[in-house]
Amino acid sequence: MGVSAKLPLDGVRVIDLTRILSGPFCSMLLGDMGAEVIKIESRDGDPVRAQGHHKDGLSWYFAGFNRNKKSVVLDLHTDEGKAALTRLLEGADVLVENYRPGVLARMGFSQARLEALNPGLVTASINGFGSEGPYTERPAFDFIAQAMSGFMSVNGPDAAHPMRAAQPISDLIAGLYSAFGIVSALRGRDRDGLGQHVETAMVNGALSFMAYLASEHFVTDRNPVQTGNDHPLVAPYGLYETADGQIAIAPSNEQILQKLLSEIGLPTLMQDPRFDSNDKRFARRAELHDILDAAMATDSRDNWIARLNRAGVPAGKVQSLQDVFTDPQIVAQEMAIDVHHEGHGNVRMLGFPVKLSRTPCAARLPAPKLGEHTDAVLSAAGVSPMATGREIS
Amino acid sequence: MGVSAKLPLDGVRVIDLTRILSGPFCSMLLGDMGAEVIKIESRDGDPVRAQGHHKDGLSWYFAGFNRNKKSVVLDLHTDEGKAALTRLLEGADVLVENYRPGVLARMGFSQARLEALNPGLVTASINGFGSEGPYTERPAFDFIAQAMSGFMSVNGPDAAHPMRAAQPISDLIAGLYSAFGIVSALRGRDRDGLGQHVETAMVNGALSFMAYLASEHFVTDRNPVQTGNDHPLVAPYGLYETADGQIAIAPSNEQILQKLLSEIGLPTLMQDPRFDSNDKRFARRAELHDILDAAMATDSRDNWIARLNRAGVPAGKVQSLQDVFTDPQIVAQEMAIDVHHEGHGNVRMLGFPVKLSRTPCAARLPAPKLGEHTDAVLSAAGVSPMATGREIS
Repeated sequence: MGVSAKLPLDGVRVIDLTRILSGPFCSMLLGDMGAEVIKIESRDGDPVRAQGHHKDGLSWYFAGFNRNKKSVVLDLHTDEGKAALTRLLEGADVLVENYRPGVLARMGFSQARLEALNPGLVTASINGFGSEGPYTERPAFDFIAQAMSGFMSVNGPDAAHPMRAAQPISDLIAGLYSAFGIVSALRGRDRDGLGQHVETAMVNGALSFMAYLASEHFVTDRNPVQTGNDHPLVAPYGLYETADGQIAIAPSNEQILQKLLSEIGLPTLMQDPRFDSNDKRFARRAELHDILDAAMATDSRDNWIARLNRAGVPAGKVQSLQDVFTDPQIVAQEMAIDVHHEGHGNVRMLGFPVKLSRTPCAARLPAPKLGEHTDAVLSAAGVSPMATGREIS
Repeated sequence: MGVSAKLPLDGVRVIDLTRILSGPFCSMLLGDMGAEVIKIESRDGDPVRAQGHHKDGLSWYFAGFNRNKKSVVLDLHTDEGKAALTRLLEGADVLVENYRPGVLARMGFSQARLEALNPGLVTASINGFGSEGPYTERPAFDFIAQAMSGFMSVNGPDAAHPMRAAQPISDLIAGLYSAFGIVSALRGRDRDGLGQHVETAMVNGALSFMAYLASEHFVTDRNPVQTGNDHPLVAPYGLYETADGQIAIAPSNEQILQKLLSEIGLPTLMQDPRFDSNDKRFARRAELHDILDAAMATDSRDNWIARLNRAGVPAGKVQSLQDVFTDPQIVAQEMAIDVHHEGHGNVRMLGFPVKLSRTPCAARLPAPKLGEHTDAVLSAAGVSPMATGREIS
């Protein structure tokens, strides 16, 4: 099982017209799996190069989402730039873009032209609402997708306060679905030689994460209710007070609930006529919460977490990012990695959530300087240096 | 571009030992892409068969996450059941499981044995914390993963109230990453004939969704702050009051902010010395919020949404699921589909977030009855009927 085996997407060339987050996250996932990702940038570069905190002139946000990519500067408003892109697409396996629907076609690269140029090309679009329907022309943004997808309607403390997740979840979900769709389409292409178009919309992706909340809606025609950290159907469940802080407890069935109650010194509570069914426990949720808080005030959070997990009860603490990255489990999983950037030293970024045993993902390249690979990539593709305005790089 | 072309994962056989949500979501994604998914169930079946609202004896939650699968009942506590599983694995391309780390090996299917049985097998594990590190033996649950990954530390109204997302995000993120990893590993296998192990942990997946919040933490060593629906760095941004309800507005740069202010009748606000920089606007966020609310009280929510989007300003409303599934865009995107289940009529479920142009995903099979395919699958694999206790089906 030599780790010198080639990565799964080794030999796949991705032309990446994306910027900001959803698309660059997708192309980073492809690069992490071994693809050669050519990030095409205007002379101003991806706006994220200027966003977030900088250190020694480098945005760590940009660095963290553009590893394993090469940067080529092209002015796609010029015929020369379009000709260079055309040449690159002829030799590529994948094109990824996150313009609004229609923009790429107006630039001269309709789906029909792309298929004519390269029938094996997998073309992927990530956008806000999809390219069919009344909202296709609307500008998209993560916050709006969270609002319109139903995500916010159940996130937050109560029905009067719908709330976005602070994380840009609709960007990330769309990027991840797109990567899955692209690799699937590549596998289809490997068999019959034909590419196809892969489209992923932020609203659709966020909506798909409603999961069983959507199933329940379909079967009951009711909207799911917001319950904050409580479970909409089960009690006890949620955050409880210990001697020195809160812990999250999620006993997912009655057997595990009995283990919890035994461990916290209330072994007969499920025989109490007030609490002898989930319906009763749910109806008296506040009262039950107080009883559990009182029982757990007798020991520290860390001790309870150890004791409950030993007993088979899912339990943990709410961790800040400072907690997370010093947590020995997260350290063991290498979920923060340091990548050397020439002239900037090591830049810390998130590690790889998908662990492959034989061909593990690695940071083979740091995030590129703007236009760093313009000469090398265009020369190899036979594009004349004069044609592209690459003095910008 | 005939749509009769084979789906990307046509011919891929997945043996699916998963239950509840993270694993079944992953295997459904593979099935939607064309894989043949053989869901192995105990005689009691996946617990989700008994969860959620039922209609005519069918859980719509189960139906919605188990389409495009076949069900085979095996008792894996018996030698006969293990022998049948062995035979199935010899002829499979993928094994997916979401037991706690070590459980499958204790059942007799260590990674070494699986490789010996079938060197081309891609084996995928979805678990809570990963199989290396101090917490590998802990029971996992979505709520705990949300707490420990940092997700809850920034979700919610303020720092005193960390909050889970109501959606089972860590299950879904892990399932989606796993599907991406599996298809990638399959593509590697198509080249060199060798499978490998693909592991995805719920905590790692949820942590990866901290995205630029993690980047900012790494570069500043500070924890991100909770800001509810406000943006941590930019104002205005958030939910605003119109004549008849709230709208979400996200002007992502100053050009778009100027478009917003012009459209709502405040074209010179950015020249006001109180608001002529983002820093000032951010410092006077509450005051600015009141000014925007007053300006937008002059028209209805739907009108503002139309006007602002026409002007290029991302804007939308917070939609409940009832709103979502009557939204003409969601309808156009076919994000709710009806699948006929024999004896149960049509069951409504979420559609396909990844749209493939040439080989679109489809519900080729409804969710299976428990053991519905036991005879057919085992007979085809040459397993003797007497050996499996399949009378249970």
